[in-house]
Amino acid sequence: MSDPLKIGIAGLGTVGAGVVKMVQTHGGLLARRAGRPLEIVAVSARSKGKDRGVDLSGFGWEDDPVALAKRDDIDLLVEVMGGEDGPAKACSEAALAAGKHVVTANKAMLALHGQALAELAESTGAALRFEAAVAGGIPIVKALTEGLAGNGISRVMGVMNGTCNYILTKMDATGASYAEVLKEAQALGYAEAEPSVDVGGIDAAHKLSLLAATAFGTRVAFDKVEIEGIERITLQDIKNAADMGYRIKLLGVAQQNQDGIEQRMQPCLVPSASPLGQLEGVSNMVVVEGDFIGQTVYQGPGAGEGPTASAIMGDIMDIARGYNIPAFGQPAKGLAQPNTSSQGSDAAYYLRFSLTDAPGTLAKLAAILGAHQISINRMHQYGHDGITAPLVIVTHRTARAALDVALAEICALSASLAEPVALRIETL
Amino acid sequence: MSDPLKIGIAGLGTVGAGVVKMVQTHGGLLARRAGRPLEIVAVSARSKGKDRGVDLSGFGWEDDPVALAKRDDIDLLVEVMGGEDGPAKACSEAALAAGKHVVTANKAMLALHGQALAELAESTGAALRFEAAVAGGIPIVKALTEGLAGNGISRVMGVMNGTCNYILTKMDATGASYAEVLKEAQALGYAEAEPSVDVGGIDAAHKLSLLAATAFGTRVAFDKVEIEGIERITLQDIKNAADMGYRIKLLGVAQQNQDGIEQRMQPCLVPSASPLGQLEGVSNMVVVEGDFIGQTVYQGPGAGEGPTASAIMGDIMDIARGYNIPAFGQPAKGLAQPNTSSQGSDAAYYLRFSLTDAPGTLAKLAAILGAHQISINRMHQYGHDGITAPLVIVTHRTARAALDVALAEICALSASLAEPVALRIETL
Repeated sequence: MSDPLKIGIAGLGTVGAGVVKMVQTHGGLLARRAGRPLEIVAVSARSKGKDRGVDLSGFGWEDDPVALAKRDDIDLLVEVMGGEDGPAKACSEAALAAGKHVVTANKAMLALHGQALAELAESTGAALRFEAAVAGGIPIVKALTEGLAGNGISRVMGVMNGTCNYILTKMDATGASYAEVLKEAQALGYAEAEPSVDVGGIDAAHKLSLLAATAFGTRVAFDKVEIEGIERITLQDIKNAADMGYRIKLLGVAQQNQDGIEQRMQPCLVPSASPLGQLEGVSNMVVVEGDFIGQTVYQGPGAGEGPTASAIMGDIMDIARGYNIPAFGQPAKGLAQPNTSSQGSDAAYYLRFSLTDAPGTLAKLAAILGAHQISINRMHQYGHDGITAPLVIVTHRTARAALDVALAEICALSASLAEPVALRIETL
Repeated sequence: MSDPLKIGIAGLGTVGAGVVKMVQTHGGLLARRAGRPLEIVAVSARSKGKDRGVDLSGFGWEDDPVALAKRDDIDLLVEVMGGEDGPAKACSEAALAAGKHVVTANKAMLALHGQALAELAESTGAALRFEAAVAGGIPIVKALTEGLAGNGISRVMGVMNGTCNYILTKMDATGASYAEVLKEAQALGYAEAEPSVDVGGIDAAHKLSLLAATAFGTRVAFDKVEIEGIERITLQDIKNAADMGYRIKLLGVAQQNQDGIEQRMQPCLVPSASPLGQLEGVSNMVVVEGDFIGQTVYQGPGAGEGPTASAIMGDIMDIARGYNIPAFGQPAKGLAQPNTSSQGSDAAYYLRFSLTDAPGTLAKLAAILGAHQISINRMHQYGHDGITAPLVIVTHRTARAALDVALAEICALSASLAEPVALRIETL
């Protein structure tokens, strides 16, 4: 058996502690599988004294994660501190610059600095791996870069934020409002006190941008992801969708169009009977479509100590076994700037309007839609209270650009009480 | 860029032709991803002249696959001839003995000779890979051996024969009988003229034995798989199951019990609302449970030219990138003989009896069950025609051994018209 792979862990929150537990629980098994032992040499975190439920007495300690990264006795740095810049980036750069491998769960850092870090890694021959950064424990980066490497990928999509899926499925199941369920999710620890990174779609968009780069061989383009959160979804929207055979999901879609790559993270209607439609709670699901494989679906826990540690260990094991492929599956310098699709693909839309209950309002709205070639598939007016007239319209397939212009015109009508809600109906 | 990886393909049926198409379609992409070109050097099949819809003019030809395997200008042999022995095994052995990598889709060969082939591969430093042998295009072997390598695996289960799932879901959807749907599946090419390898559960059991070895680090033990086919499932069984919230699937389960490893391939009842319960048509699905990851689910096409070629190419790409891990994820010589679980785990069962409609029959049957400590959860008598009295019983959790004794006693009753059907209700 070869020399041990020597590991430093920067960050001892839930995930870092999970990695320690895994090595301590499965040391023998991991060594048999990797052909060499894994050895945690040193760790770094903010507070040395804190009880993390794991025995750290055998490991060296560094207050400074950069110092950890530079230690001569470390082959591989596990970066699980989080934060897009600052110490996480500094220690990752220090490790890669010194030719040490980096395994990270840090989606925000990679969404913003993935290209630079990947180029740095390749310049020194180090590996940069990030399975844990996307869809938690699901080995989806591996599936895309390795298992499905023979395919031209046409579309990658999925539910990649457990908090949002928990909120939406809980609203559906209990009839509670968005605000009520969010509060409950915060109490349970499923949502942060400041929830906007999750419910605003940012976290999931970070993940989508990494999947898109991996799938299409392009540079990470987080700034090109169209992002919309779930904050405006009402219980009535969920019920309306259900009546039509759909469920609402915060769905990320990256697809190759004729004129470029489309990246969207937004609440969408998906068929209730589809795997995505049936996804409950904090689970994640990713759907990959390729020209030879057709469609494959991957489901699993999207977060948590065990699942995230599992993903990190998958990366560590590859490195221990001597596997070192470029971070995004192709040499970073050769990755193309993505030609962003100028206009998202056409789709049918679910529209909800809040209008005053005044004669002629519907005629004006219908006229605007008609003028923009948007045709109506179904219409439903509900909860009519004599003052406001909430109206739901499902369109036939239309261009998003035309819809946006029409919605702006409708919004400008004196009868319009609130900005309309427009949810794409995704074809699966 | 490094030297090309030189490939020989033994077998030019659907799958072999699919691999040729993939290299011809995606040559540039594959080279970028692998860091070196893939080059098909020579091929072998039964009939040289046959039109396979692909241009073979640039490749060498060998009538004898063993001669192909021995060619000096080949680094890797793709074995897609099929057949558990004979030329498939001979050419695989010849290639591995000469230190050439082998990528195969041949589940029957590996179920019977996997251990010997894996040891041969390791003795010469060649890779032996078989992603395409299990669950078609789903990269499940990779997930088990690599992505989830940090976990102790507790259970692997799934639907791994598309023919059977097509027949069962089609019976359910159309109300047609097993015989009718089988005939239709044969006409559509989903089932062989001699269907017993599929409908008898053998093909799926081959796959399960490979997953079990990979998951638990034990030698392939196909002869230890308890196998039962779907031939005796009636439309009434499917309807009865649906009434209780279940669907019937040919389900393979390999699990680690306290006293050893349990491997079963048999029709089971699974909850209709579960991912397995919702699997339609020829798709495959594998569920993996590990101590850190929890549960992950993988779904995709279980067969066909494109999906199988995709799986083969995933293996080829790993080898092209220099990745070479033991066939079953750990050195073959170190794999333990599986300690077979002496008795399957307890479960609730769905039982269907065909009895004569004579007074006292039910009392005798109930007495036998009671004598073996098998308690009844639900009972339903249906289709009572004055001569036969079909009876369905759902038991509480019971040991299979006790159930088998009780069923034998009931079968021996003069009132028993046919062997009872007993289907396990699987907990997901």
